[in-house]
Amino acid sequence: MKNNWKSMVDCKAYETLTLLARSPFDLSAENALTAERLERFHCKGDEFDLLYGCQRVTPEVLDALQSLADECKLIEQFEHMRCGAVMNCIKNFPSENRQVLHTACRDIFSNSPACESATEQAKAELASLKTFLEELDQGRICNEQGQRYTTLIHVGIGGSDLGPRSIYEALLPFRQKDRVVHFISNVDPDDAAAVLEKVDLSRSLVVVVSKSGTTLETLSNETLVRTAFENAGLDSVNHCVSVTGESSPMDNPKRYLRTFHMYDYIGGRFSSTSMVGAVMLGFALGYEQVVDFLQGAANGDSAATNRDIRSNSALLLALLGVWNHTFLGMPTVAILPYSQALHRFPAHLQQCDMESNGKSVQRNGEALQIKSGPVLWGEPGTNGQHAFYQLLHQGTEKVAVEFIGFRKSQRGKDLKIEGSTSQQKLIANLLAQSMALAIGKDDVNPNKRFPGNKVNVILMANRLTPKSMGALLALYEAKIVFQGFCWNINSFDQEGVQLGKVLAGEILGAMSGKEDENHLTRAFLSAARIQ
Amino acid sequence: MKNNWKSMVDCKAYETLTLLARSPFDLSAENALTAERLERFHCKGDEFDLLYGCQRVTPEVLDALQSLADECKLIEQFEHMRCGAVMNCIKNFPSENRQVLHTACRDIFSNSPACESATEQAKAELASLKTFLEELDQGRICNEQGQRYTTLIHVGIGGSDLGPRSIYEALLPFRQKDRVVHFISNVDPDDAAAVLEKVDLSRSLVVVVSKSGTTLETLSNETLVRTAFENAGLDSVNHCVSVTGESSPMDNPKRYLRTFHMYDYIGGRFSSTSMVGAVMLGFALGYEQVVDFLQGAANGDSAATNRDIRSNSALLLALLGVWNHTFLGMPTVAILPYSQALHRFPAHLQQCDMESNGKSVQRNGEALQIKSGPVLWGEPGTNGQHAFYQLLHQGTEKVAVEFIGFRKSQRGKDLKIEGSTSQQKLIANLLAQSMALAIGKDDVNPNKRFPGNKVNVILMANRLTPKSMGALLALYEAKIVFQGFCWNINSFDQEGVQLGKVLAGEILGAMSGKEDENHLTRAFLSAARIQ
Repeated sequence: MKNNWKSMVDCKAYETLTLLARSPFDLSAENALTAERLERFHCKGDEFDLLYGCQRVTPEVLDALQSLADECKLIEQFEHMRCGAVMNCIKNFPSENRQVLHTACRDIFSNSPACESATEQAKAELASLKTFLEELDQGRICNEQGQRYTTLIHVGIGGSDLGPRSIYEALLPFRQKDRVVHFISNVDPDDAAAVLEKVDLSRSLVVVVSKSGTTLETLSNETLVRTAFENAGLDSVNHCVSVTGESSPMDNPKRYLRTFHMYDYIGGRFSSTSMVGAVMLGFALGYEQVVDFLQGAANGDSAATNRDIRSNSALLLALLGVWNHTFLGMPTVAILPYSQALHRFPAHLQQCDMESNGKSVQRNGEALQIKSGPVLWGEPGTNGQHAFYQLLHQGTEKVAVEFIGFRKSQRGKDLKIEGSTSQQKLIANLLAQSMALAIGKDDVNPNKRFPGNKVNVILMANRLTPKSMGALLALYEAKIVFQGFCWNINSFDQEGVQLGKVLAGEILGAMSGKEDENHLTRAFLSAARIQ
Repeated sequence: MKNNWKSMVDCKAYETLTLLARSPFDLSAENALTAERLERFHCKGDEFDLLYGCQRVTPEVLDALQSLADECKLIEQFEHMRCGAVMNCIKNFPSENRQVLHTACRDIFSNSPACESATEQAKAELASLKTFLEELDQGRICNEQGQRYTTLIHVGIGGSDLGPRSIYEALLPFRQKDRVVHFISNVDPDDAAAVLEKVDLSRSLVVVVSKSGTTLETLSNETLVRTAFENAGLDSVNHCVSVTGESSPMDNPKRYLRTFHMYDYIGGRFSSTSMVGAVMLGFALGYEQVVDFLQGAANGDSAATNRDIRSNSALLLALLGVWNHTFLGMPTVAILPYSQALHRFPAHLQQCDMESNGKSVQRNGEALQIKSGPVLWGEPGTNGQHAFYQLLHQGTEKVAVEFIGFRKSQRGKDLKIEGSTSQQKLIANLLAQSMALAIGKDDVNPNKRFPGNKVNVILMANRLTPKSMGALLALYEAKIVFQGFCWNINSFDQEGVQLGKVLAGEILGAMSGKEDENHLTRAFLSAARIQ
C-alpha cells in the first residue's frame, strides 16, 4: 500500500481537464451567472455551505474533477491516513516515516474511531486536561498567595502558535470571565518584553509548547519568561506547564507543574486540536467549549469522507483549487473572511497550506513535473476592500478568492443605521464582491472597466462558534491534505526549514568569534554591518 | 508636461533588459555569492542600508536599470509630483485629476519646500495639533469629571486605518505613560463591540477619519460608538474629533470637539504622515516624536531624488522589483520584517502597493501591454520560518523576498542564552535565510535538496524608532510610486473599488425588500440562505 499512490498527471482525467482548461467557462459572459447556476453549484455542509457558482467550471469540469478524485483515490488515501497509515514518507529515501493522525484528536465521539490507539491517547490527554482545568477552577492549583490564575502566556512558534492564536482570537466572546491569554512566539526579544510588560506574573500560568522540546525560539522565550518570574521573586516551576512529546527534555516534572503530551504522528501545523491548542483553549473557554470545538472538527472529518465531490465541501474546495492552480494557472489564493474575529485565520492557513504543499518532490522520490501548492494570503473584508481589492478587480495578477462569511454576528451588538444593520452591510459587501469579481462591468472609460471572470467561492455558516470554528479548521486541513494527494507530494514533512537553521547556527558561531569554514557567514555579517 | 511620460516598454533599456533576462545571474552557482559581491551590491542610506547581493543582477543589469530610470525620467516625475503636478489622472478620460502631495506633509524642515502651498497647509494642521495635544496634556481638554483622556479610539478604514495602525504597533515602546489606542475599522459589528467592551468610555477620545466624510463603514462605526457614549450617559460631542476634508459632512463643530483637515491631494493609502496618522500618533507618542517620524520621512523623500540608482535605495528597490516582476516573472513579493513590532506593516504595504499598482490601464488611457503590480504579502520572521518559508525554499512558486531587520532591539530587554542574545539569534536567522535562499544546498536525498537561486534583499537599520519608521514608510511609498511610473499607470486612483460599492448598495436594497432590476442580487441572497 505504502507510496503506491497515483499522481494526478498519470490520470485520464488529467488529460480531460487539460483540454477543458483551454476554454474554461466565462463568468462575465452575458447571462452566464444565473440564479439556477448559483443554486446548482451549492454544496450544503453541517456548518458551512460552499457556494461555487463563481468558479470557472461546468458540469463537465466537475465530472472530470470527480474522475480525478476517484482515479487518485483521494478518499481511500484520506481514510488510510485517518486509520494510521504511514503517509509521512518519501519512497526509497530516509524520511520522517510517520503516521498522520491529527484527525484522531477529535475522533473521540465515535464508538469505532478510525485509529483506536491514537484516539485513546487523545482521550487520556483530554481527561488529564479536564482534571487540570477543574483544579484551576476550584483553586486547588493556585499561586503562592492562594489566588487563582487569570492569565495564560502561551509560548510556542509556527504550528504551536499560529493555529491556537487564530482560534483564540476567533472565539474571544466565548471566553470565561476573568481569563485572558497572551502569546509569545518570535525570537525577537521585543515580543516577550511586550507581553511581560502587561501581565501580572503572580496571576499568570505559562504554557510552553514544543514537540521536540528543543525549538530554539521557544526555549529562548521560556528562559526570558522564567527569568522574569525569578526577578519577581516567584518560583517559575509553580507557573509553567509544558506541552511536548513523551520523554522530550520538556517532559520533566521538576521543571513543570504539569505536562501534556503530543505525539509524533501529529505535525505542528495540524496540531490545533491536540493539547497544543486544547490546553490554552481549555483555560480560556472552559472544557465544555473545547469539546464543542472538537465536535465541529470531528463532524468535518466525517463529512470529508464522502466520495461525491458535489456533497463534500473539503474535497470540492480542494479540487476547485487544483483546477484554478494547476489547470488555470493561478499562483495565489486569497483567504478573505468577512469576520473580524477571523483576522489571524489567513495567517494560520498560510502556514498550514504552504508548509504542507510547498514542495518539489513526489512521494516516490521523483521530481515533481507540475506545480505544487500556491501562495496563500489574506485579510478580513471589509477592510481588504479598502486595501488590496483594487488589484483583484482591475490588476493583472490572477488570484483565486475564498470568501468566508456568517449570517449572524458573534456578539449580537448591532444597530440599524440608514435602514440596515452592520451585519447586513457586512454580508451585502461579501456577496457584492463575489458578484463583482465574477460579472465585471463594461464602461466607455477604460479606467472604470471591470473585466470580471475572476473566480471565487463563498463558505457561509450561521455564526462563528467553537463548533463552527472546529468545522472550518477541519475543512481546510482536509482540503490541504487532498491537494497534496493530487500533486502526489508528502504534505506532512518540512525539510525546507532545515538549511536556514544550520546556517543560523553557523552565523551565531561567527558572531561569537568562532572560526568558521563557511566564509560567507562573515561576509553577510560584514555586509549587514553587524559587529 | 501632463501625461506625456514614456512607458518602459518604449525604452531602449526595456529591450536590453528583456535580453539580459534570458540568462540572469545564478546565485546558486559555485562562488557566485562572494564577500566582494555582497559589499559591492550594498546601498547605504540615512537609516536603512539596502543589501542586494542576493538579487539576480550583474553590473550590466544595473546599468540597464539605470538607463531605464533615466529614459522613463523617474526622478523628474518624482520631483514633478512633489512640486504639485497633477499626476492623478488618465489622459482623455474623466479621472480624479488631482495633485499627489503626500510628501508635502513632511516637507516641513526645508526652507524651500517643493510645494509651498501644501506644506503651509500641513504646517497649519500641525500647529493646531500641537495646541490640541498641549490642551490634552494640561487637562484643559478633559472629560465631564475633569479627568484627562487616557484612551483614543481611532475609527477609519483602509488608508485611514492600516497605515496608522501599523505605525502605532511599531512604536508601542515610545508611547507616553497612560496613553493607549484602539482601532475600529471593519463594518463587522463585532469589531466595534470588541473594542467598546474593553475601554472606559468616560476617559476615551474618538478620532473619526474619512476624507469624504461619507465612508459607509466609518460612519456606521461612528454611530455605534456615539450610541455607546449616549447609553453611558455621556455627550459624544465632547469625546469626538474628526479628520476629514474641508467642508465635508464631518467638518462640523456642532458634532466634533475639534476637526483636523486632510486634502484631496493626498490619497488615503499615502496619508499616514498627514493628520490621518498624526492625530492618533500625537496622542500616543507626544508631538515631538511625531516630528521625529516626519523628519525620517522627509529625509527619505530627499534621498529618493538621487538620480544614481546605486545610491538611492527607494529607486533601486523599485527597479529591482521591476526586474523581478516584469522581466523574471515573479508574481508575488513577500515582505518579511525581522521585528515583531512591524507585524502589521506588511498589511499596510499590501494596501499601499496593491491599491496603487493593481491596474490595467496606462496613463494615456490605453490598455497595459505588460503586467502591473505584484501581489504583496508577509509576516514577521522568525515566525514565518516556522510557517510558510518551506514554500520559499522548496516550493514551485517564485517569490521575491524583502527582508527588513534591525541591529538592535527596541526595548533592550534581552538575555544571553546558550552564548547569544535573542536579538543576535534574530539577526542570525535573517542573514541565514537570505543566504539559504540564494545559495541553496545539494543533497543525495532529493527531499533535502534546496535549489537556491531565490532572490531577496535586506533592508537593515540600527533600531526601529519614530525616525526610522518614518524613513521606512517614505522608502516604500517612493518605491511604489517609481514602479507605477515604470509601468506607466496612475498609481493614485482606485476605480476598482467602485463596482463592489454599487452592488453592495443594491444587495442592501434587496435585503430590505426593495424591488431591484438586478435579479442577481436576489439570487446571491437566496444561494447564501440570507432571509
